[in-house]
Amino acid sequence: MIYADNAATTKMSEAALHTLIRLQEEAWGNPSSLYGHGQQAKEVLEKARADIAAVIGAQPREILFTSGGSEADNQAILTAAALGKRKGKTHIISTAFEHHAVLHTLEKLRKEGYDITLLDVHENGIVLPEEVEQAIREDTCLVTIMAANNEIGTIQPIREIGAVCRKKGVLFHTDAVQAVGHIPLDVVKDNIDMLTASAHKFHGPKGVGFLYAKKGIRLSNLIEGGAQEFGRRAGTENVPGIAAMAEALKEAAAGMEKNAERLMAVRDRLIEGLSRIPHSALNGDPVRRLPGNVNFCFEGIEGESLLLLLDQKGIQASSGSACTSGSLDPSHVLLAIGRVHDVAHGSLRLSIGEDITDEDADEIVRSVGEVVAYLRSFSPIWRDLMEGKKEFIL
Amino acid sequence: MIYADNAATTKMSEAALHTLIRLQEEAWGNPSSLYGHGQQAKEVLEKARADIAAVIGAQPREILFTSGGSEADNQAILTAAALGKRKGKTHIISTAFEHHAVLHTLEKLRKEGYDITLLDVHENGIVLPEEVEQAIREDTCLVTIMAANNEIGTIQPIREIGAVCRKKGVLFHTDAVQAVGHIPLDVVKDNIDMLTASAHKFHGPKGVGFLYAKKGIRLSNLIEGGAQEFGRRAGTENVPGIAAMAEALKEAAAGMEKNAERLMAVRDRLIEGLSRIPHSALNGDPVRRLPGNVNFCFEGIEGESLLLLLDQKGIQASSGSACTSGSLDPSHVLLAIGRVHDVAHGSLRLSIGEDITDEDADEIVRSVGEVVAYLRSFSPIWRDLMEGKKEFIL
Repeated sequence: MIYADNAATTKMSEAALHTLIRLQEEAWGNPSSLYGHGQQAKEVLEKARADIAAVIGAQPREILFTSGGSEADNQAILTAAALGKRKGKTHIISTAFEHHAVLHTLEKLRKEGYDITLLDVHENGIVLPEEVEQAIREDTCLVTIMAANNEIGTIQPIREIGAVCRKKGVLFHTDAVQAVGHIPLDVVKDNIDMLTASAHKFHGPKGVGFLYAKKGIRLSNLIEGGAQEFGRRAGTENVPGIAAMAEALKEAAAGMEKNAERLMAVRDRLIEGLSRIPHSALNGDPVRRLPGNVNFCFEGIEGESLLLLLDQKGIQASSGSACTSGSLDPSHVLLAIGRVHDVAHGSLRLSIGEDITDEDADEIVRSVGEVVAYLRSFSPIWRDLMEGKKEFIL
Repeated sequence: MIYADNAATTKMSEAALHTLIRLQEEAWGNPSSLYGHGQQAKEVLEKARADIAAVIGAQPREILFTSGGSEADNQAILTAAALGKRKGKTHIISTAFEHHAVLHTLEKLRKEGYDITLLDVHENGIVLPEEVEQAIREDTCLVTIMAANNEIGTIQPIREIGAVCRKKGVLFHTDAVQAVGHIPLDVVKDNIDMLTASAHKFHGPKGVGFLYAKKGIRLSNLIEGGAQEFGRRAGTENVPGIAAMAEALKEAAAGMEKNAERLMAVRDRLIEGLSRIPHSALNGDPVRRLPGNVNFCFEGIEGESLLLLLDQKGIQASSGSACTSGSLDPSHVLLAIGRVHDVAHGSLRLSIGEDITDEDADEIVRSVGEVVAYLRSFSPIWRDLMEGKKEFIL
């Protein structure tokens, strides 16, 4: 069994799981309670906040714990929108290939009268800082661009985009759900005002995430109620889960360089192997991409069948985002980088984990090759292509 | 050490914790993924949904998983408000002693132009169905009244209130965070349209809760993004946490009758003992209250000092809601039942758990008696009372 869908979710690390279990015994108190047991939980909570802040170069007070990446994305964007509106600024810049937690929130704002500009991400899936600069207007209140794409893994020039936003006095938010714990990020050096992260993408538990918001940004509440999280996010804090997230993040940060080196070697082995399948193409930039991300299109096949047959061969992968599995529409990310519908349908995302071996990679290449050939053998589109009734695109 | 703050949070049950740990190994996949491992997680998720639905008499499709009670309260109320607005109905009925997750959401709606009526909860902390009926107007879109109060534990006549709402065609939501797993609830028999619950109040994990919404109620999204939870709540589902919640709830439901009987005996022993402290009074109804809730006011003392000294004696309790600890304001719940500021300041909430013994109860009574006497010995208010410069209220 080869699990190659770490962008969808990861298994908890042993250290993080151990923390989660231990703290259900040692720090299950309510951190808002005044007695010893409550204050003990509070200490664990604040230690986790400090640890997480340290990894991304933030101050502890700038970290707000949430139930995950989607909640943090929603809160960041609604915050900037509310702050903007007060100054009469209702223009927001983003890209067409953001995660739906961003796109759907922007769609909600559009209905409320905000003006949304979605920048081109070009064929390689990279946003150009100069195009961000050109798009910024007098009434722009937010630029929200993901740090690394969840499907094609392209890494954006966040630092340069952040610098443009600073120069223009516009808030910059980045959905860094796929980036945190995987590539180096520093909110100060990278000029980031708000950043979203999710624990289960870096071997932490599900249902926990955080929002970094630079000091001075008054967050709008998404969840109203008690005074937890500096009064900006109500609900009893999931202390064991939060501490497990901190543990996982520290571990990911400590091993990042070594893991990335190894992942990139296997990734490039996969890319090289899969490129040999006829009429296939890598999606996204070959170099400026996450260490563990491989994304291909194979002409003449359906991604869903590919996945199901790979599953039978013990390889767990996806066609794109897990959040949209089951949808019949092709990936909005692949469409954004200019893939036509037919080709976008035949996509495969492999997001490998630290435990993958070269042999695993070779097995994946072999299996994908077999399955693609098999599916093409009875694909009407493929027949049309072979008979010259249709032209090959890839 | 006696933990008597189960209304703030509970320790996870062994069965729930075991489920949580086991599933981090067995069902950590993303339930939106198509391959075996994802589908396995999906099955666990749907089993949990069915189990939870069964406990409260709902259909599985009517259960939406959230990050906890606060989120569910927010979503339920905003849903009813949005549905109401479409029909020109912007009046909401609630009470002054709801949890802040309800009150602050209503406050937000008030600023948006909604008209909020907060009903009197009377001296005993019980809402009268006939007063709900009288308050309902042509433009009422929601009645939201908690099933059991989090501070004074009074149990509301939910079924009768629900019946009134049904008769008048108004949506009825109940914050049942303190009730679920502790007293019998059946959404059908109790005429409930929406219900909020939180796992960590019934020995489940923190960071997990659910919202029941009757079939046909189209929930507004609080968190936009992926298509999880029937498209009404984005974010990768915390499958292990959700299944642990289901486990805890099944356990709580199975043991409810026996536990309640035992808790009520100890509760009444505590009430009897604490009543013997001079110038003290029970808050809330003596009979129509949660099996594990005791709440007293002691004249002439400060609740916070009482808690800290009790903590030194190994008794962990609270003055009211943990969510408002650290606030200098007296409890809004105690003010709502007519306690004056001075008296409300000297409050003590004991929320006992299933493992409490008669001996524990006696120790609590003895310790509280000692601490109250000690605090009064140097309290200027108490001196004024004793010297007749001020009149006793209790």
